Amino acid sequence: MAIANFADRLLAAIDQRQTPLILGLDPVYEKLPPALTSQPGMNDSGRAGDCVNAMFEFCRQIIAVAAMHVPAVKINSAYFERYQWRGWQVYGRLVQEARDAGLLVIGDVKRADIGHTAEQYAAATLADSNFGDLGHTAGPDAITINPYFGGDGIKPFTDLAQKTGKGVFILLRTSNPSAGEIQEIPAADGQPLYQHVADHIASWGQGLMGSSGFSAVGAVVGATTRDSLIQLRRALPHTLFLIPGIGAQGGNLQDCAHVFDRAGHGAVISASRSIIFAYRDQKYAGFSGQHWSQAVLQALLDTRNEIAAALPATRR
Amino acid sequence: MAIANFADRLLAAIDQRQTPLILGLDPVYEKLPPALTSQPGMNDSGRAGDCVNAMFEFCRQIIAVAAMHVPAVKINSAYFERYQWRGWQVYGRLVQEARDAGLLVIGDVKRADIGHTAEQYAAATLADSNFGDLGHTAGPDAITINPYFGGDGIKPFTDLAQKTGKGVFILLRTSNPSAGEIQEIPAADGQPLYQHVADHIASWGQGLMGSSGFSAVGAVVGATTRDSLIQLRRALPHTLFLIPGIGAQGGNLQDCAHVFDRAGHGAVISASRSIIFAYRDQKYAGFSGQHWSQAVLQALLDTRNEIAAALPATRR
Repeated sequence: MAIANFADRLLAAIDQRQTPLILGLDPVYEKLPPALTSQPGMNDSGRAGDCVNAMFEFCRQIIAVAAMHVPAVKINSAYFERYQWRGWQVYGRLVQEARDAGLLVIGDVKRADIGHTAEQYAAATLADSNFGDLGHTAGPDAITINPYFGGDGIKPFTDLAQKTGKGVFILLRTSNPSAGEIQEIPAADGQPLYQHVADHIASWGQGLMGSSGFSAVGAVVGATTRDSLIQLRRALPHTLFLIPGIGAQGGNLQDCAHVFDRAGHGAVISASRSIIFAYRDQKYAGFSGQHWSQAVLQALLDTRNEIAAALPATRR
Repeated sequence: MAIANFADRLLAAIDQRQTPLILGLDPVYEKLPPALTSQPGMNDSGRAGDCVNAMFEFCRQIIAVAAMHVPAVKINSAYFERYQWRGWQVYGRLVQEARDAGLLVIGDVKRADIGHTAEQYAAATLADSNFGDLGHTAGPDAITINPYFGGDGIKPFTDLAQKTGKGVFILLRTSNPSAGEIQEIPAADGQPLYQHVADHIASWGQGLMGSSGFSAVGAVVGATTRDSLIQLRRALPHTLFLIPGIGAQGGNLQDCAHVFDRAGHGAVISASRSIIFAYRDQKYAGFSGQHWSQAVLQALLDTRNEIAAALPATRR
């Protein structure tokens, strides 16, 4: 059986769910619905296992209501790693849970290293596993990685992706205030550094092109400025962008229109806290009498509609 | 009680052990001594727990013979993460084991993110823990981190380091063949990118200066060229360098002389595979009749002597 390319799989899921919105899972124990956290003040001084079990149940219920409405979830491993091995165990269970629910899973792990060590990270964070004593076997469909080491920091990940039909999103232009300190250092040719990183990403992705015309090697691109989005799309016509920062981080949806083609393909847009913690938001207070996950679903559907309104090409 | 600065603690340990050599622990199950791996072919299809238990025992015995002879161990988390949560559990036990043996521990985790997520990574990989159900509580004394996000990707780590007397080593100039693809992109001022990263590292480290005159914010600098080492020392007079690539990766010890001051301070030099797998090396075949860890100890002492010969200032 031919192994389907990750970009093709992701675009098919986007077409099927009719939205480029993906749901970010960044659970924070202290913000969970009280119904799930019976023991207050547990964090940091109690049992890590109790915290991560509550986080798992929270994410499991969200996956159950979200699975029909988005093509993928992006699970941020840091929020689980924070609980050491007990968090990593639950992260693995959650990847399996989301894949079993028919969602594509992007592991937001931001790993990077070189050579043999990068192979270990690829096996750790991207591969499916054959071990019989982990309680789960599925790895994510794609992960985020960091380009600072150059090509031989990327190749172990793309080699595995090619072999297994998985993908990577390489950090390119992030949206945090100080991102420019490194990423926008002007190069000798007048371009900011990130344009050079973009050129490398185009080259690293050439061997993993799908039949959709997009590569399984994507890029993380913050919705910072309209001009940078236009320039990066021009430099990377075959690269799927992972755009964080919609919602809580406040990126501009209109500017994102420039990275989509007429078929509505070109990027996934991630929203996390504004959706998963919607039951804490005054705007969704009307759902307070109902189950908290209904507020989450409503925020998800609202965000989906905002994206459809701002980005007509992504509508079906 | 005043919290001792990490740079001061590391330099005191270097003075006490009389060497800047630190031992890298990158265990690979397939390369362990047969005495520790009773079930062949176990890797990837058997039980992750059996693999990591053998890796723990391997590292535990190495720590026992090495603890008197080096100031610190650098534990590469990727080799443990590769076994998912079971590996992470053993990594935590090993950090505790090394600290209990009187060694400083550098967690080579190469993490990076921004804002709240970076705080989670700092808690996950650098902080000591108060959870009662992990089986260990000590975090490493320092970790490696990646600068691609700029200052607000660094601050959560340095804030924790400042508060707890821990440290970070920021990836600056790595020694892999393709490092130059990003790190040596020429900037508009004629300097390679990494010189600009160096300037940022100097500034990020200012608030964490120890009484030794060195900062708890260090830099990972490969022993690539004599000129780059000289330039980086000039740009970073108060920064401890973590120099990998001695031994298996083949850096040039003589060139490293330029980063040490007259007191023999300025860097730690890491060697990993050439020492921990010495029992597989023809050079140490004479130890084959003895316990494998004696070959490891001999390789460690040989490397220590090579460093002392090449770097007179580090001798006491």
